[in-house]
Amino acid sequence: MIYLDNAATTRPSEGALARAEHYLTQCFYNPSALYHGGIEAHRMITDARRVLLSCIADSSSYDLIFTSCGTEADNQAIFGAGRRGNVVTTAGEHAAVYESCKELKNRGVEPRFAPLRADGSVDVVALLSLVDDKTSLVSVIHVSNETGAVNDIAAIAKLVKQKNPRTVFHSDGVQAFGKIPVRLTKEIDLYTVSAHKIGALKGTGALFRRKTCGTLPPYLYGGGQEGGMRSGTENVFGISCFRYAAEEKFATLAQDGSRLADVKELMWQQLDHKLFSRISPSDGSPYILTVSARGKRGEALQRMLWDKDVAVGTGSACNSKKPHSRVLEACGYEDDVLSGILRVSFSPRTTEEDVRIAAEAMNEAARQFGGL
Amino acid sequence: MIYLDNAATTRPSEGALARAEHYLTQCFYNPSALYHGGIEAHRMITDARRVLLSCIADSSSYDLIFTSCGTEADNQAIFGAGRRGNVVTTAGEHAAVYESCKELKNRGVEPRFAPLRADGSVDVVALLSLVDDKTSLVSVIHVSNETGAVNDIAAIAKLVKQKNPRTVFHSDGVQAFGKIPVRLTKEIDLYTVSAHKIGALKGTGALFRRKTCGTLPPYLYGGGQEGGMRSGTENVFGISCFRYAAEEKFATLAQDGSRLADVKELMWQQLDHKLFSRISPSDGSPYILTVSARGKRGEALQRMLWDKDVAVGTGSACNSKKPHSRVLEACGYEDDVLSGILRVSFSPRTTEEDVRIAAEAMNEAARQFGGL
Repeated sequence: MIYLDNAATTRPSEGALARAEHYLTQCFYNPSALYHGGIEAHRMITDARRVLLSCIADSSSYDLIFTSCGTEADNQAIFGAGRRGNVVTTAGEHAAVYESCKELKNRGVEPRFAPLRADGSVDVVALLSLVDDKTSLVSVIHVSNETGAVNDIAAIAKLVKQKNPRTVFHSDGVQAFGKIPVRLTKEIDLYTVSAHKIGALKGTGALFRRKTCGTLPPYLYGGGQEGGMRSGTENVFGISCFRYAAEEKFATLAQDGSRLADVKELMWQQLDHKLFSRISPSDGSPYILTVSARGKRGEALQRMLWDKDVAVGTGSACNSKKPHSRVLEACGYEDDVLSGILRVSFSPRTTEEDVRIAAEAMNEAARQFGGL
Repeated sequence: MIYLDNAATTRPSEGALARAEHYLTQCFYNPSALYHGGIEAHRMITDARRVLLSCIADSSSYDLIFTSCGTEADNQAIFGAGRRGNVVTTAGEHAAVYESCKELKNRGVEPRFAPLRADGSVDVVALLSLVDDKTSLVSVIHVSNETGAVNDIAAIAKLVKQKNPRTVFHSDGVQAFGKIPVRLTKEIDLYTVSAHKIGALKGTGALFRRKTCGTLPPYLYGGGQEGGMRSGTENVFGISCFRYAAEEKFATLAQDGSRLADVKELMWQQLDHKLFSRISPSDGSPYILTVSARGKRGEALQRMLWDKDVAVGTGSACNSKKPHSRVLEACGYEDDVLSGILRVSFSPRTTEEDVRIAAEAMNEAARQFGGL
């Protein structure tokens, strides 16, 4: 199986699993227990927090709340920081931000959605025009999970703060963390990451929080874990996998990114351009190539490809029950393009040979589909 | 190491891990993906849901929301069902219910706490006197995590509904599920369980919900997983472990319970009654024996015992930052009893020899402590 749906989830890293196994089978203790085994489990969490902070932030200015997933981190950011006035976000957000912002309406907060450009990035001028003195929160996805387009969140956050310095700035960095260079600048208050997109496990995420960004309420109440911000027995094994997977990813981030940029372009070159049109921008994440087999059904192609031992996505897996991608619709594409969307997403394991085989399979599938 | 802190967390079952490994390393796909691998992952979740429902409920009357932990399930129940009037609960709740109920005050809902009896069970008459026509929710812990006392939730729920049929009834069953016989009767609307207390992993819990119990809002908004009730990529490996661990537990639940009732009494017999007084009732859960080395410090004894290769708890591990147990204080114990609390909690792996050795170590430690 050539697995090219890494934006949906990744195969867990054998190295990270092997290093984390100690916390699954040996040091399985409750990190709140005050005997040595509990203290060791707790120390691993402290170490993991330090390691993850150091990957993208100045550890003296940020802390980090471990959550159960990126969705939880997004929900905590949106509902925690978006408690009054209006909240400005984009039409290109992951459902975890988008649906939370829609829910804000029921809680007396006005959500405002900035439009997208054709590549899936936000129209920054339009976004800024929505920010006013009542804006409590702005949330902009870092890397589009649907097209790989990169929003320059450092620049956007700076412009937002110039317009309203009291606005909290959040970004969903799930498709950026461990994949493209990220550095949290001082205007970025909250940043969401997820473990299972970088070779660790489903069930772990985190919210980076700038210490000066003001009070964020807890999202889960209880035993007071995570400094009172997120109660519930910590997912020790999941957190340790996250730490080890992040160490692996960040050790080779630059090389992987540069190699995968070539892999992505090779993939595009190998596709039959009479069958596929390109959605992803050339300056997007090297991890995502979204294309459309115009007029064909992406979902059917996806199944045909599975039978050819190639796994690709059709859009955000989190939204796969809807007929078309809400985000790509917002990019302005017509129905015949939207129906044929395939998202090919890479990992550092992906080889040139993988993409040559996968591209050939995609060409074949699209031709077969056309012949039906 | 003789591990007798199973109420804090359990060693993962090798059998459950072995059966679940497929979903860690092979079928790691996103359950929302529409190709075969994703569908297989999704089918496992459906199967796990069915298995877990069948353990304690009539599957046609209940459904089940997978959550990231017992705390999340409790929070979803309390904040979801306790949205108006008052909420009646007990002084003996786990922090996940207790602190959530305290937070309700900030949301315009009045929390009411029923007093406890000396063994940690709720005073039912007092509880019922707090229920009135404005009570939106009653939440009563099934098995006390601090003493093992069992509340007869079926009877209590019936009495509550007689007083106010519109009240939603919730119980935290974390220390009951997979340990004592449980059957959800029609007056029990919501029931919380946790995976890592029965040989599965931290990071997975569930909320059983009676289908007729009315609208519960989602706790996490996003991709619409779990029927829209709990968005976020499902923790496939954690859920599969939960399923297999539950199958193991329920296969031998009656035998284990009856054997551990003997083990518990053996443990108590082996303790020096000049040093230890008993907190746990004789009719409590066979999985928990709480005692007090009156006038000594439980935390210090706990560390001395760790050095003798015996792990025991001092009370709820989730609350171990507080000097004394809030719950045992509410039972009416004096400071010298509260300071010396040790919670010994068993698992089906616990042998008679384990408890003979552990009891001797506890006697020794208490004597050594006395001599300091």
